[in-house]
Formats: sequence, C-alpha cells, structure tokens
Amino acid sequence: MESIRNRRTIRKYKQQNISDELLNKILETSCRASTMGGLQLYSVIVTRSAEMKEKLSPLHFNQPMVKNAPVVLTFCADYNRTSVWCRNRKATPGYDNFESFFNAAIDALLVAQNFCTIAEEKGLGICYLGTTTYTPQQIIDVLNLPKLVYPVATITVGYPDEMPNQPDRLPLEAIIHNETYKQYSAEDIDRYYSYKESLEENKHFVEINNTETLAQIFTDIRYKKEDNEAASRAMLDALKNQGFID
Amino acid sequence: MESIRNRRTIRKYKQQNISDELLNKILETSCRASTMGGLQLYSVIVTRSAEMKEKLSPLHFNQPMVKNAPVVLTFCADYNRTSVWCRNRKATPGYDNFESFFNAAIDALLVAQNFCTIAEEKGLGICYLGTTTYTPQQIIDVLNLPKLVYPVATITVGYPDEMPNQPDRLPLEAIIHNETYKQYSAEDIDRYYSYKESLEENKHFVEINNTETLAQIFTDIRYKKEDNEAASRAMLDALKNQGFID
Repeated sequence: MESIRNRRTIRKYKQQNISDELLNKILETSCRASTMGGLQLYSVIVTRSAEMKEKLSPLHFNQPMVKNAPVVLTFCADYNRTSVWCRNRKATPGYDNFESFFNAAIDALLVAQNFCTIAEEKGLGICYLGTTTYTPQQIIDVLNLPKLVYPVATITVGYPDEMPNQPDRLPLEAIIHNETYKQYSAEDIDRYYSYKESLEENKHFVEINNTETLAQIFTDIRYKKEDNEAASRAMLDALKNQGFID
Repeated sequence: MESIRNRRTIRKYKQQNISDELLNKILETSCRASTMGGLQLYSVIVTRSAEMKEKLSPLHFNQPMVKNAPVVLTFCADYNRTSVWCRNRKATPGYDNFESFFNAAIDALLVAQNFCTIAEEKGLGICYLGTTTYTPQQIIDVLNLPKLVYPVATITVGYPDEMPNQPDRLPLEAIIHNETYKQYSAEDIDRYYSYKESLEENKHFVEINNTETLAQIFTDIRYKKEDNEAASRAMLDALKNQGFID
C-alpha cells in the first residue's frame, strides 16, 4: 500500500536495461489478476528494439518516453488466442462482438495495472500513455495485431531518473457515492476543485495558455471535442477492422 | 508482490463489517492510479444496505456474493462530474462520445484493480463480478447514474471465510509477444492449453456438461455467441442512453 500511496509517474529513465528475468517475473505475477472465466483475454507486446520504438513513437505523439524507456509494453484485448483454441477443439467461438471486446479490454487493463503496481514495488518507474486510444489502427498495423486483438494500454517502464512531485487528487468524497449517485451542486464543485485550481502550477498553466479558467485548458486545448470525436471514429473503425463490431 | 502472487478470488465472507475508515483509506490510496490529464474520470458507488443489495443481486445473476459481502462497490466511468465542473467554469465540455467513454472506463478500471490489490494486502478478499457488462441499463437505473456515467466493474469485498485453490494460468509465453504479434500454431495451442485441459476439475466440468472438449464449455454453455450478441446490444443501447454514443 505504501508503494501505491507514494507513487508518481516517471517519464525520465536511466540508461539501464531491465532483465528478461525481472520483466517476466513481474508480468507472470500480474497475470494473477481476475480474468473472465479464467480465459486471460489479453496479450502483451514487448518492445525493446530501437527500430520498433522508432515506429511507435509518432503514434504516441512523439512523447520522449517511448524512445527513452528500455521497455515499452502494449497491453491488448485478445480474443484471437481463445478463438484459435476453440476452433482447434471442435468449438465454435462467438466473440466477434462488442461485449467480447469490452470483456477482453477489462482483462487487459487489470493486468496492466497489476504490472504498474509490481514494477513500482520493484523500484522501476512507469508512465501510462493515454495516446493508445487515439491511434489504434496505426498501432495495430505496426504491431501486426490480427483480428480480435486490440491495443488498450501502453506503458513505458525503466529505472527512474527523476523524482517529480506527486500530482493532486480530488478529495475522496468527490469520488464516492453512498448507495446511489448524488448529482453535484455548484457548491460541491467549488469545494472539490478549489485545491486543484489553487495550485501554483495550474495557475501558471492558465496564464501561459491565456485561458480564463483551468477547465478551459481541458476543453479548449488538451481534450477538445473535435479531437475526441475524431478519435471516436478512429476507435470504432479500428474495432470494425479487428472484427469486434459490424 | 507476494500478496498479488498468492491471491485468489474470495466468494465467501465472514459476518464482519468493514469500517468506513479502512474502506476509505483503501479507496483513497487506489486513486493514486494513473488518470487521464489528472481528471479522475470515475466514481465509486458504495453499497452497504440490504435494500440496495437486494436490488443489485438479480442484475448480477443472483450470485450470492452480492448479498453476503458487507460491501459491494460499483466502479463507474464518469465524465459527468468533470463536465459539471467545466460548465461551472465557462468551459464547454466535449465528452459525449465513445473516445471519452473509453478513456473514463480505463481510469475506472485502473482504480478498481488498485482497490483489489490494496484490499487483499489488508487481509480482505474480493470477487470481481463479470456480470456488470451484461446488465448495464438496469444497474444504471438502480444506482441512479446520470448521463455520462456508466458502470464498468463491480467488486464484492469482505473478510475471507474460505481459502480456495488458486486457479490455473497459461504459461507466460502464451501471453507475451516480442516486438510483433506472432500468430498461434496448432502446436502452440496444444502446448499452452494442455495443462488447463489436464486439470481434474476441468475434466470433471467436461464430464458433467456432456461436452467433448473444455473449449465447448465456453462456446456452448458459459459465453455463448447469442448471449454475447444480446449483451453487445444492451451495452450499446446503454452507452447511447448515457450519452456516450449517437
């Protein structure tokens, strides 16, 4: 619990490799996560080569972690392996649908989070790349993912070469609801977001971006409606190409 | 790492409550998980009352854990809170789309997995209910989830009153791919699945279900094509109702 409590995202790594032994031990233990029907509906693509990092880098908007980390992991929802098993065992798989995609995505994400927790406990640092959902088809092409395999998370990992501050979190009462969901009043929002809005670094963001509020940074600059809509189309197209939706 | 390595799903709980203090401490620490833009795109609905458990139970196919666990947690993808914040801060949110749903679902699942890890480290036992993706609209109605909130994971938690065997896992080489995805040959499948197929309990399943192979248990009994297709329609309908797709 201390390891999770004190964690921070690490974006700068030492020029030190991670042994196969350590990486495999962490991955193997990560697979103890709950999984639907014990089927383990995921695969993990391990990227170590400079050539593959070069190809993946632009798909993650050239964030420097992709090239600088010794290891990049792409966690994929995978119903392909299970389907091959079924076909080889006189069973007819019925997993070319959205429900199956989502169940496999859940399986993959639980393992990805386990990986992060264990890696950090072992002294490694990770960065979770949110870019994977924006460029799925290009990642599919580069990693040669067959039908019924879809990338849901990318994690860079290495030995930390920085010690950044921990980012802020909303107070817990902003997150939990007792018995049923309670809609947020204006006063709730003020109370829950005041700390975040008061932070010097966030005030600085607002200043250098010339916005009036911190929220506008998110709506007008970082996660814009038109970008989200374009990414939605890209996701749905890629899910179709991978055989998960019609 | 030992805690994750030795974990097993717990379905029987002692008649012992979990204090608010302990539950909140675990949830608060869970929120240290990576989150998109620091936005924490999730909410957690805490169910303790017998009345609400009674309502949730059939939506989880009457699995006894829902009524018997002291606490049931429903982890939700939540872009509602962030959108209210935006609107109250002269910012126009653009999160009524599939991309935003999936990003919020990822955020929620990473926190859910952190919760499981920490709860187990604290001596609690958890069961991850895979049923949430099958009955989303009914769960939305019971928990009173507004638009842009969608349930992605349900976890029952309590003090363990059983010590089941650990389930099997595929060998790690079945899961990882170096640099690019390698399709599975018939020999690979035989090698990777032989242990699972050789287990006495799985042979017993095949016998009592009168199937020829273990894989047929999954395709013909547990996760049938028609059930997955019905659940896909239910998910897409619920995503539409919650405002995440057109």
